[in-house]
Amino acid sequence: MSHLINKQVLLASRPVTEPTLDNFTLVEKPVPDPADGQVLVRHHYLSLDPYMRGRMSAGKSYAYPQPLNEVMVGGTAGEVVASKNRDYEVGDQVVGMGGWQEYQLVEADAPHALRKVDTARIPLSAYLGPVGMPGVTAWYGLLKIIAPKAGETVVISAASGAVGSVVGQLATARGVRAVGIAGGPDKCHYVVGHLGFDACIDYKTHADARSLAKALSRECPAGIDGCFENVGGMVLDAVMQRANAFSRVAMCGMISGYNGAPIPMAAPQLVLLNRMRVEGFIVGEHMDVWPDALRELSERVASGTLKYRETIAQGLEAAPEAFLGLLKGRNFGKQLVKLV
Amino acid sequence: MSHLINKQVLLASRPVTEPTLDNFTLVEKPVPDPADGQVLVRHHYLSLDPYMRGRMSAGKSYAYPQPLNEVMVGGTAGEVVASKNRDYEVGDQVVGMGGWQEYQLVEADAPHALRKVDTARIPLSAYLGPVGMPGVTAWYGLLKIIAPKAGETVVISAASGAVGSVVGQLATARGVRAVGIAGGPDKCHYVVGHLGFDACIDYKTHADARSLAKALSRECPAGIDGCFENVGGMVLDAVMQRANAFSRVAMCGMISGYNGAPIPMAAPQLVLLNRMRVEGFIVGEHMDVWPDALRELSERVASGTLKYRETIAQGLEAAPEAFLGLLKGRNFGKQLVKLV
Repeated sequence: MSHLINKQVLLASRPVTEPTLDNFTLVEKPVPDPADGQVLVRHHYLSLDPYMRGRMSAGKSYAYPQPLNEVMVGGTAGEVVASKNRDYEVGDQVVGMGGWQEYQLVEADAPHALRKVDTARIPLSAYLGPVGMPGVTAWYGLLKIIAPKAGETVVISAASGAVGSVVGQLATARGVRAVGIAGGPDKCHYVVGHLGFDACIDYKTHADARSLAKALSRECPAGIDGCFENVGGMVLDAVMQRANAFSRVAMCGMISGYNGAPIPMAAPQLVLLNRMRVEGFIVGEHMDVWPDALRELSERVASGTLKYRETIAQGLEAAPEAFLGLLKGRNFGKQLVKLV
Repeated sequence: MSHLINKQVLLASRPVTEPTLDNFTLVEKPVPDPADGQVLVRHHYLSLDPYMRGRMSAGKSYAYPQPLNEVMVGGTAGEVVASKNRDYEVGDQVVGMGGWQEYQLVEADAPHALRKVDTARIPLSAYLGPVGMPGVTAWYGLLKIIAPKAGETVVISAASGAVGSVVGQLATARGVRAVGIAGGPDKCHYVVGHLGFDACIDYKTHADARSLAKALSRECPAGIDGCFENVGGMVLDAVMQRANAFSRVAMCGMISGYNGAPIPMAAPQLVLLNRMRVEGFIVGEHMDVWPDALRELSERVASGTLKYRETIAQGLEAAPEAFLGLLKGRNFGKQLVKLV
């Protein structure tokens, strides 16, 4: 293996406000040979996710900051190309946290280090999307935090994204009214026409929370019982103005506040007035639900009843720019980088 | 009875910002005789509570607005002075929602209209405080929402008040570290020295949330696991800066935002970063817990292990001014009006 080259993207510097291409650097290293117990994985797909923005900063986050001059952390899907671990064979399809690089040497016996996946009925890339972390995030936030009853209304921000698209489809499958919020007519059309949400609001046509709240009133005639919040800021403020008594907010992302200054919540007294429950969560801390979640998600993807869309950048060199685009909402569905 | 006079305080107008004495008017009416099924109660004590401020406004609140030109709503404790209901006798001690007046005619068979209380071991006024709505509010928020484990740390704002004082004592009784926040050295001294909280911070010595957060760091060396929030604004912002992973906020009051403009939450992304649960509640919507709560609270008050303090204004005419003082934190412990 020693003549192969492993391209890697490192975090070169921390962004002060918006990240730029200068925060990343591309390096090349020889691909190492596996030692006893190790597995060498060649990555076919790299997952790009909003949480990575938080880890680029040194400040407090739910995860440790990404170290400088090390490979950017991230989910990966690939194939075993060399193995000195009896549980893995060359050719096995696996998902892991290999980071922004073409190859990774994995201590395959460590818990949750690698997971073998079956690509007979489910494409490999889906294990980074609806049958992976984004899908389980959607499942947990909707079913364990919002826990909607049939007939209730749930609002989902970033509705065309990797997480939001799954939330809405799981909701409608349970008789719950799913109202998406997305940016632009194309995404809104996709959310309703293709994913089957009951409605979708283009937040770009609303200048402030008051205007967005009016649109929510139209699309949520019985008020809002649950909110799957991927964005924060104006969207959350508007949702809170239309929230029903005993409504629940699953706080999954606050993407609009990642670049430096936090965005205040305009009217926190509504949590009291509406007797709301607002709960932040990270699905990696709830490993106990993964088997149940993956069972439903894989069945739905295999049968075609859970739809998803991918935006695929080509080659590791394209990862930084694709990631910056993700933060600006330029992707459509799950943002991946294809390496093979 | 018809020669008796019933003094009443009505809501004369709604406050635009801060309420004033002009918002109230005192009237006199003859005391009516009870019809079949009715009971005439003479009020000994009237309870004044922060939630009444919300009901004075016409805007959205968890309760319907208090109607104009009607008796101010409020909890009362008194004695049956005439009865045409077989379940009640003259001399019975009762609590109810009689409002700001000296007498009330009660349809005593309506659910939760009246509750007979035993004043052999517990003073009548305590049924408006630690053995009444404020006590059950404390019990529910601490035990059902925060649900602290021994060794955890809970911060309680308005710590010397009718609710906060009970929260802290129920916490320390369970091996939970109770850190109060109160206004002024007298209240802080009382909270620690008399009520037995582990510490108390005088928020008046802190100009902003940053300064208050530093004080919280000193008094909560292991961080904050729960917060019983009676105030909102700067206090909640500071608590969130020191909140541990998986911490819980029982949102019971937002008194600092009642006068017009809402006070934003400075950094709502901390709900996500700390995986917090923020939950608003109103104890009147959880009647199922009242028996358990009242059992513990009445035992603790009767045995002297649950301490409380009252500020008592004399005569119905004093109610408006006492209420305005309550909103400014001028009371010390439970604010009552003594009518007999």
